[in-house]
Amino acid sequence: MPTLQQFIADSVSQLSFAPIRLDSPISLDDLPTPALVIDLELFERNMHTMRDHLQASKIDLRCHSKMHKSPIIAKKQLEMGAIGICCATVSEAEVMFASGIEAILVTSPIVTSDKIDRLITLATQSEQVEIVLDSIDGANALNSAAGQAGIKLSVLIDLDPGMGRTGIEPGPAALALAQHIVDNCAHLHFTGLQMYIGNCMHITGFDKRADKYRKLLQRGIDTRQLLEDAGIAVAVFSGGGTGTFNIDSDIGAIDDLQAGSYVFMDVEYRDIGGPGSELFVDFAPALFVLSTAISKPQQQLITFDAGIKSLATDNGYPELNGVEGVIYHFGGDEHGIVQLDNPSCEIKVGEKYAIITPHCDPTVNLYDYYYPHRNGVVEEIWPISARGRSQ
Amino acid sequence: MPTLQQFIADSVSQLSFAPIRLDSPISLDDLPTPALVIDLELFERNMHTMRDHLQASKIDLRCHSKMHKSPIIAKKQLEMGAIGICCATVSEAEVMFASGIEAILVTSPIVTSDKIDRLITLATQSEQVEIVLDSIDGANALNSAAGQAGIKLSVLIDLDPGMGRTGIEPGPAALALAQHIVDNCAHLHFTGLQMYIGNCMHITGFDKRADKYRKLLQRGIDTRQLLEDAGIAVAVFSGGGTGTFNIDSDIGAIDDLQAGSYVFMDVEYRDIGGPGSELFVDFAPALFVLSTAISKPQQQLITFDAGIKSLATDNGYPELNGVEGVIYHFGGDEHGIVQLDNPSCEIKVGEKYAIITPHCDPTVNLYDYYYPHRNGVVEEIWPISARGRSQ
Repeated sequence: MPTLQQFIADSVSQLSFAPIRLDSPISLDDLPTPALVIDLELFERNMHTMRDHLQASKIDLRCHSKMHKSPIIAKKQLEMGAIGICCATVSEAEVMFASGIEAILVTSPIVTSDKIDRLITLATQSEQVEIVLDSIDGANALNSAAGQAGIKLSVLIDLDPGMGRTGIEPGPAALALAQHIVDNCAHLHFTGLQMYIGNCMHITGFDKRADKYRKLLQRGIDTRQLLEDAGIAVAVFSGGGTGTFNIDSDIGAIDDLQAGSYVFMDVEYRDIGGPGSELFVDFAPALFVLSTAISKPQQQLITFDAGIKSLATDNGYPELNGVEGVIYHFGGDEHGIVQLDNPSCEIKVGEKYAIITPHCDPTVNLYDYYYPHRNGVVEEIWPISARGRSQ
Repeated sequence: MPTLQQFIADSVSQLSFAPIRLDSPISLDDLPTPALVIDLELFERNMHTMRDHLQASKIDLRCHSKMHKSPIIAKKQLEMGAIGICCATVSEAEVMFASGIEAILVTSPIVTSDKIDRLITLATQSEQVEIVLDSIDGANALNSAAGQAGIKLSVLIDLDPGMGRTGIEPGPAALALAQHIVDNCAHLHFTGLQMYIGNCMHITGFDKRADKYRKLLQRGIDTRQLLEDAGIAVAVFSGGGTGTFNIDSDIGAIDDLQAGSYVFMDVEYRDIGGPGSELFVDFAPALFVLSTAISKPQQQLITFDAGIKSLATDNGYPELNGVEGVIYHFGGDEHGIVQLDNPSCEIKVGEKYAIITPHCDPTVNLYDYYYPHRNGVVEEIWPISARGRSQ
């Protein structure tokens, strides 16, 4: 009979991280649906596009692993030059750390002793484990725990871009918090600022998005200056995402970009538009839910086997890849009902189609495995080791 | 290196089904959040209410395990008299069967050979494994596979209640399909009809719901008569759910009820109302997401650690249990932002609150474990063994 702590630790140590090689290659058509598939050619192209763009812009990539939840993909990003990864939760960080990744920034504040203890356990093993905080109480709790463990914990101050989610207000409040860390928290090492402007990422229209982003980011830039004027070194200013990657490179204020979705893309991001373009086409959708048409109860409808439990529902519609003139409606937990207005091809019961996901992050979190393929051939299965690690 | 089939089989055989007993009881406050918790007292009360009601109404319970995904709970339902369980997918059925449950109805049609092979593998081991079908092609495919395996597979015809999701049209089309099974499918045993009227379950207002349900169900009742008039025995008419449990008992047409949500309830079901009541109060919310307040960036807002990856977003808002005058907004994958309009109590950073889920089924599917508790004391952890089994 384990303690809760043992139970959680065991649940991490029992995970497998490596690709599972199949005894012989199979076709996409052989997969049990709904299945989460990666088009490796597009996936690699997206990774190269981001690397090349950031290299030219002298911005580092601190890729967000909350999107893919996969140490396999995180390691590919690190091999391609990312300086580290972001994790949204301590339990995600535990999985990534257990897989051998040491440079981890936890991008959301934690306040309870159980989470702080778990973070400190990681930080004791790697000086590159960092976390954000957004309050004096939060700083004191981390400082006390780091002191007890005999370590110096690196922390960034999380700035609220006006979302009202997490973060302290930019300006004097942030300065006061930084000053508190420097003056009173001997076991914390203040490394910089995080400002993730999530309320800008999905603004439709490049110019509109860029305008609002510049205005909001300016408060972060000013706060950095405020701290430096007060003699507090701000080694790192971390932020930005897929939706601002080509805006951040123009502004030049962010040191590292916390992008995640560029790897897979989704309907939500594709539709925000790019410079001079209605669609955001710098990155291509590379993640799909493969689904089978299983029933045709009415002439103008055909039902697929991917519903609420296979596709995130928080935003927008799924899309059948390469098919025009149809609308994919959620038809309950296990079904999607496709309305056949003016379909560009005939869809028959028993056929499998690839669906572009409305929102990649929470869709990935519904699956245990990726099936990566090249030209429709699957050779490996990749565990989504951090799936469900929302704690 | 496994084949895909071996890999899938291994993923089932490696599951654990039994409760994990903790070395000593812990408090709800000790749980890492977001955590999925069950109030055992309310959970048991819900189970007793349904059993007593159906016993008095002479309707059997064929409870839907797609909701809880847990062999532990399914077995409790069977011990209390349920005649079997429903599964929405073959992969759910595989997990339930591996845990020792033999009476399983798969409630959605399957059409591809991989799924049919997997179902036949189960049916070869238990005559109580049944499935619905809704087309002649579907019947022929199942018949052929059953014949090759040397078994007789029990099947129900799925009737479309006008949802346009799955099912054949009630009336002559259904009769023709039944006749085809009886005449031409020597390896299928036609046991009856399924009519799950999902488009009625959440109609707000008891009388309005009952009226529409009676009208739609009549087509199923007539179809049963049509088949029996044609000399085709309809041993079972299966259907209904939590939202119609007290309508079905009044009508008396359904032989077994496919209810699932009554065990846990959610905001969506609570709000449909009952006889003479604005709320549906026959069953009490017994499932909660325990979440911690982690940040307070603005005076009128406080941020919790349960977002899109911890609460289903397909319908309605989460609710803080026992707190009035606040609204829970989704604040991204990992956060909920609670708007403090006129809160009935002060909510402080670091405190944990229980959230009533908007929709229980897809919320359960986000978690690996339940933490059942009695009066706030947790002694066991229950694996959600069929989580993610959407195939």
